[in-house]
Amino acid sequence: MKIRVSVLGATGTVGQRFIQLLEGHPWFELAALVGSERSAGRTYAEATRWVLDAPMPSEVEGMTILPDDADLDTPLVFSALPSKTAGRIEQRLARAGHIVCSNASDHRMEPDVPLLIPEVNPEHLALIDVQRARRGWSGAIVTNPNCTATGPTMLLRPLHDRFGVTKLLLMSMQALSGAGYPGIPSYDAIDNVIPYIGGEEPKVETEPQKMLGVVRDGVIVPIACTISAHCNRVPVLEGHLECLSIGFAQRPELEEVVATLRSFRSLPQELNLPSAPAQPIIVRDEPDRPQPRRDRDAGRGMSTTVGRVRPCSLLDYKLVCLSHNTIRGAAGGSLLNAELMYAQGLVKA
Amino acid sequence: MKIRVSVLGATGTVGQRFIQLLEGHPWFELAALVGSERSAGRTYAEATRWVLDAPMPSEVEGMTILPDDADLDTPLVFSALPSKTAGRIEQRLARAGHIVCSNASDHRMEPDVPLLIPEVNPEHLALIDVQRARRGWSGAIVTNPNCTATGPTMLLRPLHDRFGVTKLLLMSMQALSGAGYPGIPSYDAIDNVIPYIGGEEPKVETEPQKMLGVVRDGVIVPIACTISAHCNRVPVLEGHLECLSIGFAQRPELEEVVATLRSFRSLPQELNLPSAPAQPIIVRDEPDRPQPRRDRDAGRGMSTTVGRVRPCSLLDYKLVCLSHNTIRGAAGGSLLNAELMYAQGLVKA
Amino acid sequence: MKIRVSVLGATGTVGQRFIQLLEGHPWFELAALVGSERSAGRTYAEATRWVLDAPMPSEVEGMTILPDDADLDTPLVFSALPSKTAGRIEQRLARAGHIVCSNASDHRMEPDVPLLIPEVNPEHLALIDVQRARRGWSGAIVTNPNCTATGPTMLLRPLHDRFGVTKLLLMSMQALSGAGYPGIPSYDAIDNVIPYIGGEEPKVETEPQKMLGVVRDGVIVPIACTISAHCNRVPVLEGHLECLSIGFAQRPELEEVVATLRSFRSLPQELNLPSAPAQPIIVRDEPDRPQPRRDRDAGRGMSTTVGRVRPCSLLDYKLVCLSHNTIRGAAGGSLLNAELMYAQGLVKA
Amino acid sequence: MKIRVSVLGATGTVGQRFIQLLEGHPWFELAALVGSERSAGRTYAEATRWVLDAPMPSEVEGMTILPDDADLDTPLVFSALPSKTAGRIEQRLARAGHIVCSNASDHRMEPDVPLLIPEVNPEHLALIDVQRARRGWSGAIVTNPNCTATGPTMLLRPLHDRFGVTKLLLMSMQALSGAGYPGIPSYDAIDNVIPYIGGEEPKVETEPQKMLGVVRDGVIVPIACTISAHCNRVPVLEGHLECLSIGFAQRPELEEVVATLRSFRSLPQELNLPSAPAQPIIVRDEPDRPQPRRDRDAGRGMSTTVGRVRPCSLLDYKLVCLSHNTIRGAAGGSLLNAELMYAQGLVKA
Repeated sequence: MKIRVSVLGATGTVGQRFIQLLEGHPWFELAALVGSERSAGRTYAEATRWVLDAPMPSEVEGMTILPDDADLDTPLVFSALPSKTAGRIEQRLARAGHIVCSNASDHRMEPDVPLLIPEVNPEHLALIDVQRARRGWSGAIVTNPNCTATGPTMLLRPLHDRFGVTKLLLMSMQALSGAGYPGIPSYDAIDNVIPYIGGEEPKVETEPQKMLGVVRDGVIVPIACTISAHCNRVPVLEGHLECLSIGFAQRPELEEVVATLRSFRSLPQELNLPSAPAQPIIVRDEPDRPQPRRDRDAGRGMSTTVGRVRPCSLLDYKLVCLSHNTIRGAAGGSLLNAELMYAQGLVKA
Repeated sequence: MKIRVSVLGATGTVGQRFIQLLEGHPWFELAALVGSERSAGRTYAEATRWVLDAPMPSEVEGMTILPDDADLDTPLVFSALPSKTAGRIEQRLARAGHIVCSNASDHRMEPDVPLLIPEVNPEHLALIDVQRARRGWSGAIVTNPNCTATGPTMLLRPLHDRFGVTKLLLMSMQALSGAGYPGIPSYDAIDNVIPYIGGEEPKVETEPQKMLGVVRDGVIVPIACTISAHCNRVPVLEGHLECLSIGFAQRPELEEVVATLRSFRSLPQELNLPSAPAQPIIVRDEPDRPQPRRDRDAGRGMSTTVGRVRPCSLLDYKLVCLSHNTIRGAAGGSLLNAELMYAQGLVKA
Repeated sequence: MKIRVSVLGATGTVGQRFIQLLEGHPWFELAALVGSERSAGRTYAEATRWVLDAPMPSEVEGMTILPDDADLDTPLVFSALPSKTAGRIEQRLARAGHIVCSNASDHRMEPDVPLLIPEVNPEHLALIDVQRARRGWSGAIVTNPNCTATGPTMLLRPLHDRFGVTKLLLMSMQALSGAGYPGIPSYDAIDNVIPYIGGEEPKVETEPQKMLGVVRDGVIVPIACTISAHCNRVPVLEGHLECLSIGFAQRPELEEVVATLRSFRSLPQELNLPSAPAQPIIVRDEPDRPQPRRDRDAGRGMSTTVGRVRPCSLLDYKLVCLSHNTIRGAAGGSLLNAELMYAQGLVKA
Repeated sequence: MKIRVSVLGATGTVGQRFIQLLEGHPWFELAALVGSERSAGRTYAEATRWVLDAPMPSEVEGMTILPDDADLDTPLVFSALPSKTAGRIEQRLARAGHIVCSNASDHRMEPDVPLLIPEVNPEHLALIDVQRARRGWSGAIVTNPNCTATGPTMLLRPLHDRFGVTKLLLMSMQALSGAGYPGIPSYDAIDNVIPYIGGEEPKVETEPQKMLGVVRDGVIVPIACTISAHCNRVPVLEGHLECLSIGFAQRPELEEVVATLRSFRSLPQELNLPSAPAQPIIVRDEPDRPQPRRDRDAGRGMSTTVGRVRPCSLLDYKLVCLSHNTIRGAAGGSLLNAELMYAQGLVKA
């Protein structure tokens, strides 16, 4: 029997991705869609401006959207709520016993909330006990990181474990989908780049340290790594491409860097979670890859693709990485979090 | 009476920019167009696939293209020749007494060849005497830098003079026009970024040190600054946007950085050279500028626009800069070099 | 002494174009900016998200925006108001004695309101007397047509006069700027075409008949021409490109069609109006022109460019035409209307 | 046991699509790749600049490319050869007993060569006997139409059968992929439309009549329908969008047009051919569909999507249709032709 799940913020672009990824899921079954006041009471097909290229799954078309203060009868809840709105609603549901897998930023940096990438820090789920004890909740909130932090953190995991990462300079070229819908006006996007994304750089500069940190006595001790980020919006539909310069505690050989990235496997691969890619990190040898359009769908949008690993004259190595921002960097990341929790007995029917 | 000039490589995209910028020039008069074997003997209109948005100036339409071994009777020659081809032809002309202002990379890093941005290192023209003495030429070759090195070097000039620049990490988002014509296939460019430009990073990592260096005993002593570059091609028509992180010998205050950039004026502005922008560096205060399409034409494509000056947690400051790659970064840069030389008596009718 | 003018809807994209085109105008001087309730009382720089590529003229930055019920002291008013909103406000101003040159659709098809392209139907200004008599106004409303109707109507004028145009099938590929700002979300525009523009086809199918009609006894008798339109939105920033198949009362020779278009000159050219292009219609011979990016600025955005004139197996001839939608098709068209009225003594200081 | 097949022109973009579509095919097995002189002897991975978004199938990477005069041992040959080159090579292979399913235009309009869309004119395969008798071949050449003719012809089949189609005015907005690779330079494609595609309009104006014609005494009698085409290249990666105005012998009701399109099924659906879409024609009710990016993959790129069916004031009805140009309009169309021939016993192991 499948676990019944709800999606909060179901009509937005991340909500649409949740619905798309949940279609035919082997463990989870979409049971409720929750929307804003404007949408509640209407069918999903009526209330939604569906923007994904693949068509709206027929099974959701007729589902009636619930208001965001509805009582839900699903043990698992996915939240695609916007920041600010998310906080209060997610807390209410966690208090009421739901496992909330949230894509919103509201709780990410709270000390008792796991900021989770299953390949990176599955042991951070230990914080759930802390969270429940402290807050008196029977449910829990688990978050996934900002889309731009996701790819780099995936790479840093095996590199940090072997060589110690101390410095990261990161420059992103981010897809338009990251701004939601309607998002960036086309008159700004064509033949142009916008070198600014509100609130993005601080997230990218702090989330990785938490995720790469260790849990000690119920508290995460972040790693000591200085990160500086430059975030840009480019005319690409999906897929965040990032240039990284990385400094190590002990400088490895180039071949060691490549081999470490290429051979990385982690718990989701061992557990064979449904959404886990066979290879969390794909290293390409061509000089001009990864490219957003050609590599974003690697591992069904769940792999991080790396290329151009080469020495950096300023730090130690530089490289390019690509991660699908609305799959691995949003709905797919949350879904994998839920799969890990289910596999570990944290979600029950 | 105007100085008569020739353009080498006249049918290509940089050649077209030279022709466009020379139209109505107060000091120079286009007298000869030189092309490849394929074009020689045909009229310019016949031989050229004109790709610029503004139409082909009517006065060049009927001009017959000369072969590249033709004897030219113009004291000044602009070279838009491709790398490799340029070397031999430019040398022949310099030997024959012509001042060759070249956009090609062949001679840029030779110790006796000025690599010139008039606002940055006008005193490097002193190398011409060295060049003539060493090579026995009556003419000379003067080069302008790679388009991607141009904007950052402009900024570094006043910053280095006041605070000493020791480190530069640079990520470029470069326009399609930089690849020439036909250049990048549209099937690669739409909804995509190509994180690689062959041969570009080494140029960007070495040319600024030469330009910012000082001439001592006829030799340029480059500055001691470590530069690391990440170069990318984005779907933008014109204008190279670059993210910079800069480290200083002595860390200035943020306001000093901004004021130093904003107040920068140099010799071309003093001499009021025809192509010199009133402000070589424009600092914008909006959070989301410069943008390629909206800022590339500042100062008729000759200004460098800077924005988002802010602290960098890894080096000292970070910022975004934009420079028009086929105007200031190519034909316009060469033209300003020629104007400086004319104003200083190095080009004579 | 210049005529003082106001701009209604000054903060929107068409309002921005009015301001840009009025900068340095020889006859008109921008004296007042009118905006919505949200903008009134703020300076133009504060209230406006300036989206044009050329920067905001410095003289408007500090002007305070007036509310739309303000009494204006300018004899001439340009209206960039949205449909529906425009009607009432424009009527109030016309009643109060202002000449209102409107880009809005509200009054275009009213029988006593000139729908004016100065090269096409300058004699329709005779309707102003009818309008004043009927409505008891001391001012007047004069409109310019829908941007997509503008180019074809310009072509049809000389063709209809010589050969009689009876049928027109038209397919448009319209620029994103036509949807205003923010307009089309970039996520819909990249790698895509939207084959629908709300309300556009009926306008394109009816406005030309009125403009090409004759005034008889104070009434416009429209021409008898059947028009069918297909309107599409393509990822182009500015410039509406349209494919036309045209049927004639008497089929001319191909050369006659081309010669008729090419030699067309009209009253604005005779009067040498400041915004009138030297050639209202430019015919290009290359097989692949006009192209939006390369031809939209012909005649400073006021010329219509035609290409590919060739036989049509279904009607008589087919061709491609291009017109700048926010210059000739909006603010520039309105401005030329005002210039014509001023030259004819209809606007007085 | 699967039928062994070869692909001619295997390294080009259409060749790449053949390889992609043949991966895992239930009836056919890719056995040989044929390339130009430049490619022959190299492995496919070495010789090919793979441009499709999905990665190169691993099984072809190491296959050695054969020269185009090689003897092939596969009963079935797919030709992705360019026009002009195709003719001679395809004839040699047909003479030698191969069934050649060609995407090239060389033989399309020859009277004894089927120009085949399996849903439209499967009975035209009867021409094979004529072809063999006349030419003395043991094999045969069967062609598929131009990509731009494909979608409209699919629609016209059921409409013509019920109501008689006499007039068609067609305006295309064609994808960049149709120009092959490198194809259109990106500098021409961004923020632009090119209103010309060499040689396209004559094909679109003649191929449908042949396909919709009837075979009588071994000869195709084309239908009497006047077609006029306007062909344009727009900045879209895949999917040709076309606006059609259609005139009928007897004007049907709007509902009849829609119902006829929507209910159309044909032989490939009856035979359940592997590449046949469940619905050859999909009619959408939304006002703004079909859109290239959102609808091109309908029926795995094999369906034609129609929208905006509405009256036309000049002819009878107008509508928009979309067909995937490199799948249904090229490699996929050829593949379906081969599947039909196999199902009918014309291809044998």
